[in-house]
Amino acid sequence: MLRSFEIVNMKIAYIGGGSRAWARKLMYDLALEPRISGTVALYDIDLEAALQNEKIGNLISENKESLGKWHYVAVSSIEEALHNADFVIISILPGTFKEMESDVHLPEKYGIYQSVGDTVGIGGHLRALRAIPIYIDIANKIKENAPHAWVINYTNPMSICTRILYKIFPEIKAIGCCHEVFGTQKLLADMVKEILKIDRPKRSEIKVNVLGINHFTWIDKASYKNIDLFPLYKEFSTKYYDEGYQNEGNWEVDYFASCNRVKFDLFKQYGLIAAAGDRHLAEFMPHIYLRNLETIEYWKFRLTPVKWRILEREQKIKENKKLINGEMDVRIEESGEEGVGIVAALLGLEDLITNVNLPNYGQIKGLPKGAIVETNVLIQKDSVRPIYAGLLPPDLNNLMLRHLYNQESIVEAYLTKNKQMAINAYLNDPMVTLPRGQAMQLYDEMLQNTKSYLPDWILK
Amino acid sequence: MLRSFEIVNMKIAYIGGGSRAWARKLMYDLALEPRISGTVALYDIDLEAALQNEKIGNLISENKESLGKWHYVAVSSIEEALHNADFVIISILPGTFKEMESDVHLPEKYGIYQSVGDTVGIGGHLRALRAIPIYIDIANKIKENAPHAWVINYTNPMSICTRILYKIFPEIKAIGCCHEVFGTQKLLADMVKEILKIDRPKRSEIKVNVLGINHFTWIDKASYKNIDLFPLYKEFSTKYYDEGYQNEGNWEVDYFASCNRVKFDLFKQYGLIAAAGDRHLAEFMPHIYLRNLETIEYWKFRLTPVKWRILEREQKIKENKKLINGEMDVRIEESGEEGVGIVAALLGLEDLITNVNLPNYGQIKGLPKGAIVETNVLIQKDSVRPIYAGLLPPDLNNLMLRHLYNQESIVEAYLTKNKQMAINAYLNDPMVTLPRGQAMQLYDEMLQNTKSYLPDWILK
Amino acid sequence: MLRSFEIVNMKIAYIGGGSRAWARKLMYDLALEPRISGTVALYDIDLEAALQNEKIGNLISENKESLGKWHYVAVSSIEEALHNADFVIISILPGTFKEMESDVHLPEKYGIYQSVGDTVGIGGHLRALRAIPIYIDIANKIKENAPHAWVINYTNPMSICTRILYKIFPEIKAIGCCHEVFGTQKLLADMVKEILKIDRPKRSEIKVNVLGINHFTWIDKASYKNIDLFPLYKEFSTKYYDEGYQNEGNWEVDYFASCNRVKFDLFKQYGLIAAAGDRHLAEFMPHIYLRNLETIEYWKFRLTPVKWRILEREQKIKENKKLINGEMDVRIEESGEEGVGIVAALLGLEDLITNVNLPNYGQIKGLPKGAIVETNVLIQKDSVRPIYAGLLPPDLNNLMLRHLYNQESIVEAYLTKNKQMAINAYLNDPMVTLPRGQAMQLYDEMLQNTKSYLPDWILK
Amino acid sequence: MLRSFEIVNMKIAYIGGGSRAWARKLMYDLALEPRISGTVALYDIDLEAALQNEKIGNLISENKESLGKWHYVAVSSIEEALHNADFVIISILPGTFKEMESDVHLPEKYGIYQSVGDTVGIGGHLRALRAIPIYIDIANKIKENAPHAWVINYTNPMSICTRILYKIFPEIKAIGCCHEVFGTQKLLADMVKEILKIDRPKRSEIKVNVLGINHFTWIDKASYKNIDLFPLYKEFSTKYYDEGYQNEGNWEVDYFASCNRVKFDLFKQYGLIAAAGDRHLAEFMPHIYLRNLETIEYWKFRLTPVKWRILEREQKIKENKKLINGEMDVRIEESGEEGVGIVAALLGLEDLITNVNLPNYGQIKGLPKGAIVETNVLIQKDSVRPIYAGLLPPDLNNLMLRHLYNQESIVEAYLTKNKQMAINAYLNDPMVTLPRGQAMQLYDEMLQNTKSYLPDWILK
Repeated sequence: MLRSFEIVNMKIAYIGGGSRAWARKLMYDLALEPRISGTVALYDIDLEAALQNEKIGNLISENKESLGKWHYVAVSSIEEALHNADFVIISILPGTFKEMESDVHLPEKYGIYQSVGDTVGIGGHLRALRAIPIYIDIANKIKENAPHAWVINYTNPMSICTRILYKIFPEIKAIGCCHEVFGTQKLLADMVKEILKIDRPKRSEIKVNVLGINHFTWIDKASYKNIDLFPLYKEFSTKYYDEGYQNEGNWEVDYFASCNRVKFDLFKQYGLIAAAGDRHLAEFMPHIYLRNLETIEYWKFRLTPVKWRILEREQKIKENKKLINGEMDVRIEESGEEGVGIVAALLGLEDLITNVNLPNYGQIKGLPKGAIVETNVLIQKDSVRPIYAGLLPPDLNNLMLRHLYNQESIVEAYLTKNKQMAINAYLNDPMVTLPRGQAMQLYDEMLQNTKSYLPDWILK
Repeated sequence: MLRSFEIVNMKIAYIGGGSRAWARKLMYDLALEPRISGTVALYDIDLEAALQNEKIGNLISENKESLGKWHYVAVSSIEEALHNADFVIISILPGTFKEMESDVHLPEKYGIYQSVGDTVGIGGHLRALRAIPIYIDIANKIKENAPHAWVINYTNPMSICTRILYKIFPEIKAIGCCHEVFGTQKLLADMVKEILKIDRPKRSEIKVNVLGINHFTWIDKASYKNIDLFPLYKEFSTKYYDEGYQNEGNWEVDYFASCNRVKFDLFKQYGLIAAAGDRHLAEFMPHIYLRNLETIEYWKFRLTPVKWRILEREQKIKENKKLINGEMDVRIEESGEEGVGIVAALLGLEDLITNVNLPNYGQIKGLPKGAIVETNVLIQKDSVRPIYAGLLPPDLNNLMLRHLYNQESIVEAYLTKNKQMAINAYLNDPMVTLPRGQAMQLYDEMLQNTKSYLPDWILK
Repeated sequence: MLRSFEIVNMKIAYIGGGSRAWARKLMYDLALEPRISGTVALYDIDLEAALQNEKIGNLISENKESLGKWHYVAVSSIEEALHNADFVIISILPGTFKEMESDVHLPEKYGIYQSVGDTVGIGGHLRALRAIPIYIDIANKIKENAPHAWVINYTNPMSICTRILYKIFPEIKAIGCCHEVFGTQKLLADMVKEILKIDRPKRSEIKVNVLGINHFTWIDKASYKNIDLFPLYKEFSTKYYDEGYQNEGNWEVDYFASCNRVKFDLFKQYGLIAAAGDRHLAEFMPHIYLRNLETIEYWKFRLTPVKWRILEREQKIKENKKLINGEMDVRIEESGEEGVGIVAALLGLEDLITNVNLPNYGQIKGLPKGAIVETNVLIQKDSVRPIYAGLLPPDLNNLMLRHLYNQESIVEAYLTKNKQMAINAYLNDPMVTLPRGQAMQLYDEMLQNTKSYLPDWILK
Repeated sequence: MLRSFEIVNMKIAYIGGGSRAWARKLMYDLALEPRISGTVALYDIDLEAALQNEKIGNLISENKESLGKWHYVAVSSIEEALHNADFVIISILPGTFKEMESDVHLPEKYGIYQSVGDTVGIGGHLRALRAIPIYIDIANKIKENAPHAWVINYTNPMSICTRILYKIFPEIKAIGCCHEVFGTQKLLADMVKEILKIDRPKRSEIKVNVLGINHFTWIDKASYKNIDLFPLYKEFSTKYYDEGYQNEGNWEVDYFASCNRVKFDLFKQYGLIAAAGDRHLAEFMPHIYLRNLETIEYWKFRLTPVKWRILEREQKIKENKKLINGEMDVRIEESGEEGVGIVAALLGLEDLITNVNLPNYGQIKGLPKGAIVETNVLIQKDSVRPIYAGLLPPDLNNLMLRHLYNQESIVEAYLTKNKQMAINAYLNDPMVTLPRGQAMQLYDEMLQNTKSYLPDWILK
């Protein structure tokens, strides 16, 4: 038996490997991790994009600053990507930006505004209907080709995608990863700096207990060293309640930025720290923050137009071409994402405590077993173990359950081909306050707009 | 040791014993049950009313048609009523009709309509805030004075009142009883008669599996003899979907009647049979059935005005006087309620399967343990055992959970004096679609209107 | 749509349909039920025996006292029996009496005595190893040929056979039925007669709350009319503690009789009424009641020799021949079993409350979900619903869990081909007090004796 | 608001502060932790011993090598010790060595041998009966005097003592700490060194998933860096199966040492790594390892005589006197215990992952909620969160449950004054294989021997 601490010949299957943004982040982070090396198989329905990433990946790996040596290769089937994979990363767009445009902007005709449109609400609903069959397929292929691989999902709607993976292949070793909580930790680090008048702590020094569902996660305990951060947050959120506090970009020009006013308001109402960006949080409580354009303006966050996403992608494609042509230099920098850290922890290189999405084994007490929840976990060699996060107060648990069961209804509707159940989930979304007739008209339009990705039974 | 099958000297404590309607029903049913006899201690904050009922009760008991012999006595304290009681019946009005008028009609100023206003919604919320301290007191007194007595609650909001009894005195032997499901069984009996062209079956011959929370109970299995009633109900509800079906009074003149259109519509949407009156059901889904006066008209049910309740009470008071003066004869007739049947079953006289409200021991799978749920139970000598009712589909379970957790938040808010949590429950009620500012204005008005029954911390 | 209350053309598949004892009981009870008629398909690995039963069944059905008209037909495959079946009855002998002889008597060489040897202990262990593959096969065939049929299992080891049915086909509608609790109800009826000096009540008038696992069931609440039977049982069991009380045959000559001394002793120790025959109960606590032949004699029950079972069968075979030849007359009499009553209840003809074996949905609180437990259920048209039975005291729950997890370990061992886990279950049986070396020697001998029914992996 | 990272003025209440062994370890570890300082209040029923420790503690604290500055003070009441305490350490002897001598050695007359006698078995049973009233008292006093303090229990029987703390004061922030798992981690470190031929890793580098109950804890996953330790342990335990492997002292002269043969045998049977000393493990499976003196000799571990404990204590007392008189120098050295590390983590100074005893919130799936179980936890500022440990295989879970419910029965027996339930727990202990008559004789003798610590109802 060979026993060695060297970790070579790892194989990562990257589904959605033609991605312009996420793939690059992974490449950089892998390059900065000296202890692991191997192959990344890039699979994408857009093979061209995967081939481009193959080139860029190898350029990065060959760069002299690159510490971990990886070989990138585009492959033409998921099966080929999965074969012998140790890790599987899934980061795809369910449908195209055209469908996403319908998800997000069509409802505006009916006075319904969405800041992101990929998680809950009408947009999230449609995106889920497109994502589910793709994830059923992926889950089946993982079951067949890489049943022991660790699977990291980045795709939204996170909860539903991860739920499908476990529904189809219950033994899968999958986690759903999202950086939204990190943003809140950074906000708390800013706060510590400002109030305690010390150097800004690192994100990882801000200890938080996370509980909730993806993009609607909450913190009920936060500390920095021996300091309880709740009294500080009370002070901080009160101070900036009206004006807002901009920590990541200027909300007036940056479509991803916000002023944390939603977060501060939620603290006032619920006493816990909401731990996601305002754009996401607002969508879970549209009757307050997304009533109309004035409300949105008042709470100081932005709706992210899909047009902008399209422009940004074009930008990235140009950049990629320059990189490949050598017109631009590779500049390796940490992404701030945790995927590679998770891989390292799963390989036994270090303990990692972070928040991920997993089926509820009891880590959150008031939510149903098996539902996908987000809490801290301990990651060690070949294991991801939830850390008991406790119980949300009943008023907040209630909000959580409504979205959780809407998602569960969509999943159940899909798996049992029960269109009425999908409709019931849609009509119960807090965004849908239209009379039933109009609501159904909107639903039909949205189904039509995205119909090439939908099954027959729902179109009828 | 005396061992005998005669059941004499039972003591029933009746809290709210000055009641005009419910008390009379009990008196009749006791009179018609030959196997039990004893004393009924009538306690009421309105002692005068209790004394009147004492007289009427004894008149009934002395009537020659009366089979069970009971002695009625009005008492001036709950303690006296409870002392040595075998059974406790609670049937009170939390507050007066004046407060109820505010509960039900004040919100109309804001465009919010309620058909009953005593369970959920804004009216139910305020009524709960008044009922909770009364029930805390009753629970403590039962604990001290009659810990082994069986307690039957009839007061609304049923779920919250029963929850408080168990929160304060977990060993209490309490059940919450409500006749709403019976109405649906009768509707099904009508249907059997019409479709099968046979004699109308008795209510008790219509076998149903009940699951849900009070006034929002559902039936997922129904049969008459060897006939599955679901295909029949599909036929029946389709036939009467547009016109409605009047089984208990004319909805155009009777404030309690309806046309079952809400019920038929819910069947279409959820596939299960909603098992309560339309007036109650509508309040759980106000965005559909209570949007405005036209919608209400469209669905063919009535809002029950509190003025009407006041008139009806005056009528009853006059009637009572006549009874006492001998101007009117006692006419004993079955009430259709099940209280006395439950007492008989608890005494071991017969097995009874019926639906009651109890903490969830697991009888409904998707609802939290300990929450008050309504399902069938088996009642035998000194025992009430839930019968496993199963799981609601996720779309329906979702609607259930929202109300259940709103109720739980009100209870928790009260017990921990957390006003914000009460507000959060209120703002999350589906009836509250106003912008937060207006919603809070309404809340404040409603608190003021009913303030003599409310604690300081919620008024501040 | 035809809607009718006549229940004709039912099909019952009888697996083990060559049975001499159980089949006859079913035939009689069907003959005595006027409301149902149809076909009974008899399948048995011994086709000859099934053919005999076909003849006898038809003779019975044609008898003038027979009210329900049934057609009996022997079939040569399970699939044929199951095709279109509404009900499936399984009552088989896993292996032959030769194997059973080894189960029961071989251990006597090592000083280990078993009164029945078919449930727990060494005998139950081996019988389980033989029954599991048969039940895996039956479950798969039901899944394929009669997925909606109601399945009634009578075979021992009951818990394991029923567990396998649900493990292999989780949607199966199966219940495990056993008459042991009835015996205890009859004992209580005797007691009521003796102490209250009244006519002996019917078994069904003795109301009991049943909880436990098959053959180790307990009663924690018992009543007759308004009388709590626990004080009476204390009196009764004290009176007969030393002498014993014979209610069903003379234990000195009848291998199935006992004096209830084990039951009385268990009451003294645990405060609840053990609800199975002493022969079964003793096997769950062998260190007390089965230590050696003197102890057995002391507690006044008998070991049932397999030789006697063989003789009895020969008797039955002769009797059958006479019946067929017309040398003996058919005499229809109630069997005292409940199978036909259950069928009637499942058809909607009447409500039935009785005790059966089912997966634990929460009906017993301290036992694991999914484990096969025995409690009361409510049987109505097409539904069997557990009635919440509560929680055993911790000392008794402990004894229960030991056997339950031994059974679960055997099931798990079989399904995962893990011989060591089977051994661990065996070594943990309370009957096995031998040093490990000797215990393993016995185990090997027993495997060899029954090897034609065992898979390779356990023989190695 | 003062916000500072300095942690001064902590107060630790030490119940059992006259201890000779454990107190010294704490003093050393506190002296070696530079980041915290404050007061240690020493309470002991032997005030003299507490006063001695006061002197020794202050000598240590004043020693020039001491980094954390602590003031030790003996107090004469628990209340005084608890007043304003931030931490409470409980480390007591329930009864005296005289009672312990009876616990351990009296049963030898009946052929029952115990290696430790403080956890399960007859000795653990009696010790529990003495400990429970003491812990009821402590829990009540903590509730009144230091409800927000963190409580660390070291006393055996660990599970029962911790259970009582939570039963009496459910909001208590208590954990039970034990070093037994550390010994197994050290054994694995030895193994890594031997097989991988590298430097011996530190204990904390051996990552293990711990699950079970105190002294019967198991490891189902173990790794060192990227190496799975299970294949290594298979190799290692096979190699040393016959001879044994001595890692901590010579078992032939040291009463606490063993050869790990029990551990290796348990691995062979159950496939998991038992994670406690052989002396403890053996007591959970006495029918294998403690049958008689030869078996014990065969498995190469020692029974620890109480006489030896007495001698050792005298030794310590002499040593203490010399320390106080200045005849001996203070030599500060790490204890290897984790108490101070836990205190530091609870203060927010660092994350700590370690194994402790806590009520089961679901961290072990197959064991009942609320039972005291031992798993890994994450300790951070003011929080101890269980890490999901999973499920034991059914054969092993079975062994666990038997002891767990025996303990629960003892607790329940005590709290409800139910002597028979205590007896049932005793008779169900795997050590008790005597006929019931003899077993009861032994029980009575043991109760008599320790009667000054027992309540009336159990002596009757």
